[in-house]
Amino acid sequence: MFLPTLIALLHGPDQPGLVARVSGWIFERGGNIVHADQHHDREAGVFFQRVEWEARTGGEGADPAAFRAFATGLGMKVQVTTSASRPRVVVFVSKAEHCFHDLALRWREGEFSGELVAVISNHSDFASVAKGYGLPFHHIPVTAETKAAAEAKQLALLGELGADLVVLARYMQVLSADFLEKLGRPVINIHHSFLPAFAGGRPYHQAHARGVKLIGATAHYATRDLDEGPIIHQDVARVTHRHGVDDLIRKGRDLEKTVLAQAVRWHLEGRVLVYGHKTVVFD
Amino acid sequence: MFLPTLIALLHGPDQPGLVARVSGWIFERGGNIVHADQHHDREAGVFFQRVEWEARTGGEGADPAAFRAFATGLGMKVQVTTSASRPRVVVFVSKAEHCFHDLALRWREGEFSGELVAVISNHSDFASVAKGYGLPFHHIPVTAETKAAAEAKQLALLGELGADLVVLARYMQVLSADFLEKLGRPVINIHHSFLPAFAGGRPYHQAHARGVKLIGATAHYATRDLDEGPIIHQDVARVTHRHGVDDLIRKGRDLEKTVLAQAVRWHLEGRVLVYGHKTVVFD
Amino acid sequence: MFLPTLIALLHGPDQPGLVARVSGWIFERGGNIVHADQHHDREAGVFFQRVEWEARTGGEGADPAAFRAFATGLGMKVQVTTSASRPRVVVFVSKAEHCFHDLALRWREGEFSGELVAVISNHSDFASVAKGYGLPFHHIPVTAETKAAAEAKQLALLGELGADLVVLARYMQVLSADFLEKLGRPVINIHHSFLPAFAGGRPYHQAHARGVKLIGATAHYATRDLDEGPIIHQDVARVTHRHGVDDLIRKGRDLEKTVLAQAVRWHLEGRVLVYGHKTVVFD
Amino acid sequence: MFLPTLIALLHGPDQPGLVARVSGWIFERGGNIVHADQHHDREAGVFFQRVEWEARTGGEGADPAAFRAFATGLGMKVQVTTSASRPRVVVFVSKAEHCFHDLALRWREGEFSGELVAVISNHSDFASVAKGYGLPFHHIPVTAETKAAAEAKQLALLGELGADLVVLARYMQVLSADFLEKLGRPVINIHHSFLPAFAGGRPYHQAHARGVKLIGATAHYATRDLDEGPIIHQDVARVTHRHGVDDLIRKGRDLEKTVLAQAVRWHLEGRVLVYGHKTVVFD
Repeated sequence: MFLPTLIALLHGPDQPGLVARVSGWIFERGGNIVHADQHHDREAGVFFQRVEWEARTGGEGADPAAFRAFATGLGMKVQVTTSASRPRVVVFVSKAEHCFHDLALRWREGEFSGELVAVISNHSDFASVAKGYGLPFHHIPVTAETKAAAEAKQLALLGELGADLVVLARYMQVLSADFLEKLGRPVINIHHSFLPAFAGGRPYHQAHARGVKLIGATAHYATRDLDEGPIIHQDVARVTHRHGVDDLIRKGRDLEKTVLAQAVRWHLEGRVLVYGHKTVVFD
Repeated sequence: MFLPTLIALLHGPDQPGLVARVSGWIFERGGNIVHADQHHDREAGVFFQRVEWEARTGGEGADPAAFRAFATGLGMKVQVTTSASRPRVVVFVSKAEHCFHDLALRWREGEFSGELVAVISNHSDFASVAKGYGLPFHHIPVTAETKAAAEAKQLALLGELGADLVVLARYMQVLSADFLEKLGRPVINIHHSFLPAFAGGRPYHQAHARGVKLIGATAHYATRDLDEGPIIHQDVARVTHRHGVDDLIRKGRDLEKTVLAQAVRWHLEGRVLVYGHKTVVFD
Repeated sequence: MFLPTLIALLHGPDQPGLVARVSGWIFERGGNIVHADQHHDREAGVFFQRVEWEARTGGEGADPAAFRAFATGLGMKVQVTTSASRPRVVVFVSKAEHCFHDLALRWREGEFSGELVAVISNHSDFASVAKGYGLPFHHIPVTAETKAAAEAKQLALLGELGADLVVLARYMQVLSADFLEKLGRPVINIHHSFLPAFAGGRPYHQAHARGVKLIGATAHYATRDLDEGPIIHQDVARVTHRHGVDDLIRKGRDLEKTVLAQAVRWHLEGRVLVYGHKTVVFD
Repeated sequence: MFLPTLIALLHGPDQPGLVARVSGWIFERGGNIVHADQHHDREAGVFFQRVEWEARTGGEGADPAAFRAFATGLGMKVQVTTSASRPRVVVFVSKAEHCFHDLALRWREGEFSGELVAVISNHSDFASVAKGYGLPFHHIPVTAETKAAAEAKQLALLGELGADLVVLARYMQVLSADFLEKLGRPVINIHHSFLPAFAGGRPYHQAHARGVKLIGATAHYATRDLDEGPIIHQDVARVTHRHGVDDLIRKGRDLEKTVLAQAVRWHLEGRVLVYGHKTVVFD
């Protein structure tokens, strides 16, 4: 028999008995919890939970809407996903190809709990590369004058594609606050720097000029405040005086690939809960 | 009002409803869960849990024995500790002082959920150093001939001291299987190598001879099979051809300190569950 | 004007004045040293040097054979390469594709000081993938019975291709000592483990069974003693009880890619000097 | 026979033959180079070198002033130290003791090529701890009103002590530009953050508020521009939502200790060359 798995991410005001109530509700409806992780931010008085269960008997225990209603009744904000549906991912690219290849190869290896369904680019360079992976490629040029129209076209396309997640794989255009709001879906960006250091452009040149001994990369959700979105993952690499700006860029590419892939993997497995401008990552 | 906190570590055959039953039991007895973490080893069919709660109303919810009886009834093996009692730690040392100083300083900084209560050594070198930290020092020499008698003396002393944990901070004597069995308390050892590589003596010389590019250290519970005890924590450091054996030893000292301290911290916070010859660390 | 760059790797018995003699020889013949790194193993009494210079005036200073004769006269073993010729690299693969894609993409990004010139495989799976990168693909099946004949075929092909380096990108056949000797060219292998731990097969299963907290990968030169070749590079990743064997394999793939690529990059830049069964890496 | 070792750090305009001239000068004066490392910043056209030699015959080859004159004649800036004299280090502390203990214990283990000769503090807390290590302790209180006078006193004391290096081991007073200039000796500071992120006060609170996934520490030379001095060493540690500010502070202490100790070790071994507001570290 096929057993759908449900994953819920909850947060809200802390109160005694929340773990018992949630697990009781699931158990009474035939669910078997296979993973559960809680976090209590005691200063803020907030409760966070990720709970994953097998719905062994169908019915309410297999119904995301039923759980959502229950959790909302506890005063919680909640997101529920089910293994019956795999999230659809659209990748935005420009001209740098390392992150795109990395995502496509990992997807093909089965590393992601989701499907890459299309590639959108402001350049036409990747048309054949995308095809090589069996991915539809959409070229939507963007200039200062056409930006609003281009974003409207992107939004329409994302709607048609049924996109659940947008990944900016070194997409070199800033998405407008209006676009993000209308999209209403999460957008993951890779910032080629250890934020908050070196926010802004050419971070490897900045890092080289400052003489830092570590460079980094940061994957975060895109928000209207550029470089201020909730951080999902970060990593660093060691550099020395022997490394020129070119070496920093090469090492940075490796960081960007692995940090972005990890963030996308966690997101697709329902492990990332956004709270204010921070994240709780249930790894 | 003083709220005692209880921490339980459970494991046993997986079955539906375990999370609900445990959290329900705690909630109904006035407990408020402040942390809970579960792990299901699905291949082995084993359930693991660490649950920490505030006993707000006293009674059964504040009684380790009551919880123990409940969990045993579910077919679980269980350990319960309470914030009302702080574990008593005895440190065994020989002549290398880096791990000992590190533990003593961290203890004084308040990093450990436990008390250092005494130092036992087969040498007399640390008598005044121990005194400097306000720690009673016991010199119990060990030779091949006197080993059995020395271990008997150590056991008697550990009994008097009410030791809950023994930490071997580069203690250069092998404890007999008989000693470990009679002690019946956990013993944490720091192995100056990345196990299973370079088990045995002089690992830094072995590593240098083999030309490895990383050296490591491993903290584990001592068992009758030397170097085979359940691993709690490991870490590595990068080395190059420019590092001689002396440099490896120096870098190794740093690894040994931090790896041992982390293992002791986790153990004292009730985060380490031993299962077969492996550990589940609820960090 | 085109300035060829020469890179020499030297080692031999230490003696006063070696640095002065080598740099003097280069300077007097119009060479400008752009990098130089020395290492003295004082216990063994051995001198190691990597020196890279621009031959500004041609003549002897631009002639690898002239330098070789000079260095040999000093009692040194020496290898000289020149930027006028780029090493030719042949990649051996079987069915795992992550390392192969990683190498091919990095080569295309210009990360390597050499050329990928062909792919040899004991399976036919990668024929079209190789073609996608513009790389000739040679299918040479290997069975226990045909092994000797297959190796003869590989050797002939490598000769025709003018291979300077063979990279085993998760090639699942052991190369015979006879093959290695007849080849007379370096072969870099990626061992999917932190050597010397878990030498042999299925290291991720071994690591999971032992409960280690770190897994690793090792790039080394292939020698007749399997798993005992000189180590070029190693790295590790942290794992926990939450990671099953599949997760270890996935994390292992990432390690294998980056560790192998780094080893190949260093080798192609003339940074790796083999000495006994160890390496000196002038990074 | 005692063989003094000399270490020179040079930098200046690049020109052909520098390596040959320097090594030739040393060889002709009976010196045997035991380590040499060069770096050419080709964009800036600057040559950097660290060279270490045994002066086997005395005379000019053993005379720092002679080498200094020679190198200056080549247009280089140069610093020469000799093993005949061990640098004298004075440690400044306030109330946090982790870095101080760490430095004192490493010094006692023989990890540093220099001598701790005194402790200066704006508080009296460490008087007995310093004594425990056999180190003279000087209490010089500092208030806004007495700052100038206190600095004058510190300068006089450092002069008497013959200090070659000042280490700020979490010293919580800003040293004035005037003080630094009059001192004319290097001052190493540990900044409890990954610079340039979170420059300024309470970096662990800042990091927690921003939700970063890595915290860091930076050792740098103190300059008149606070937090802008040349960086010697940096490291980071991973944090999650489960870590409160207290945990960040605890993890930060470990980073601060190891990063400061590494910077001091490198400085004392003559491995750190300051160039503009960056460093070249010949590790």
